[in-house]
Amino acid sequence: MCELLAMSANVPTDIRFSFSALSQRGGVTGAHTDGWGISFYEQRGCRSLHDPNPSAESELARFLKNYPIKSQMVIAHVRKANRGRKSLENTHPFTREMWGRTWSFAHNGQLRGVKKLSLGHYTPIGTTDSEHAFCWLLNHLRIHYPQRPSDAKLQRAIAEAFASLRELGVFNAVLGDGHALYASAAAKLCYIQRAAPFGRASLIDDDIEVDFAEETTPNDKVIIIASRPLTRDEVWIDVPAGTTLIFKDGDLMKRFA
Amino acid sequence: MCELLAMSANVPTDIRFSFSALSQRGGVTGAHTDGWGISFYEQRGCRSLHDPNPSAESELARFLKNYPIKSQMVIAHVRKANRGRKSLENTHPFTREMWGRTWSFAHNGQLRGVKKLSLGHYTPIGTTDSEHAFCWLLNHLRIHYPQRPSDAKLQRAIAEAFASLRELGVFNAVLGDGHALYASAAAKLCYIQRAAPFGRASLIDDDIEVDFAEETTPNDKVIIIASRPLTRDEVWIDVPAGTTLIFKDGDLMKRFA
Repeated sequence: MCELLAMSANVPTDIRFSFSALSQRGGVTGAHTDGWGISFYEQRGCRSLHDPNPSAESELARFLKNYPIKSQMVIAHVRKANRGRKSLENTHPFTREMWGRTWSFAHNGQLRGVKKLSLGHYTPIGTTDSEHAFCWLLNHLRIHYPQRPSDAKLQRAIAEAFASLRELGVFNAVLGDGHALYASAAAKLCYIQRAAPFGRASLIDDDIEVDFAEETTPNDKVIIIASRPLTRDEVWIDVPAGTTLIFKDGDLMKRFA
Repeated sequence: MCELLAMSANVPTDIRFSFSALSQRGGVTGAHTDGWGISFYEQRGCRSLHDPNPSAESELARFLKNYPIKSQMVIAHVRKANRGRKSLENTHPFTREMWGRTWSFAHNGQLRGVKKLSLGHYTPIGTTDSEHAFCWLLNHLRIHYPQRPSDAKLQRAIAEAFASLRELGVFNAVLGDGHALYASAAAKLCYIQRAAPFGRASLIDDDIEVDFAEETTPNDKVIIIASRPLTRDEVWIDVPAGTTLIFKDGDLMKRFA
């Protein structure tokens, strides 16, 4: 299995506090040692960094912990290989361009028979079930909508596709295009919204504490999604299995059950 | 204008020596200060790093100079913005998946009327002429070849598409999929092949010397492509304008004039 981390914020926000916790789970506090990756959205741009080595030992991960990339959306993943060998091309998040935006996808779980789902234009580069599911999803959307549809239609189409994938097994996943963040919960997915008045929080996985009041302005809103809570002194909301949540600009916008 | 750097090698090879020179041209020895990026291929995997800040001042570039990523193919670029503002999404190399591989593209030059070329599935994320040309090229290939054709057909199709783009202006460009590296010369493109017996070389742009004999084995072959020679004590081959060169595993495979 793997662990997920994602962020949606209404202002460019530094993910390093949460990423420190996730990267500890790649070899220190968790056994997700088969690679890690992270996508940062900055307006229409997206940077995606991957490393097939354990995040807890990764020089690139150590660099990121000291490098403040401010982003409105982040998707990150630490991997425990299951289907698909340990390699760069099998490392999440996977990215593709659709309708002139970069879409990023990370998945935790196993999907029985997903590789029987037919593909089209979007083709996997690696051998994971997860990337196959992502390509199927994009092909499915693109067949129905050669051009980007309205937000409402797109949200419903993604929620329906997520529901189809949940029928194949365990599908905890996050998907985003820099505009909205889509989360599927099968089990083991939770989130928190941080907004004024901001308080202090300390990580479960590392000896790091932060006072968000010092880092934020009163209008800031940030959603953090994770496989398991990252902090010990905040209340995380468990997402019920079978749910799709859609976040935008640091707020929960919509829920499909 | 911008500067290009690319590498094709028959063994995983460290690009740091050449990248040090390129990154100096992003603010110290050259005025290409509007961002930089680099794609590293490791078997089927590809890492792409981008920074809209000058490479000479970039912390990420500094990190890379001390981080030995060994790769069989690299495409890199320092940018001087011309069409398309300075931003992450306008930073080369651009990447897209085609036929289950990641294709990377970087361009130096200007193309008149390129945005009149019609697109299809592949859509630009940013606003540069270069990304439009890349998307046109991929759509063009994909329309003719829904599945990947033979190497010979693909080489000819890319050479013909490059020739069409050269008719629109200045089209120095490098394109690769981890398998082969395709270079278009309009003016200002040169390359060098390093093979046994390996010697010493020193950079023009920085006070760095390397003894390749210490870094290589006798069977290693490496091609380095650059806008201008990177070393002062080696003989670089100028590529005549109007030429497409195709490199694989550290060798020049084919030339289309």
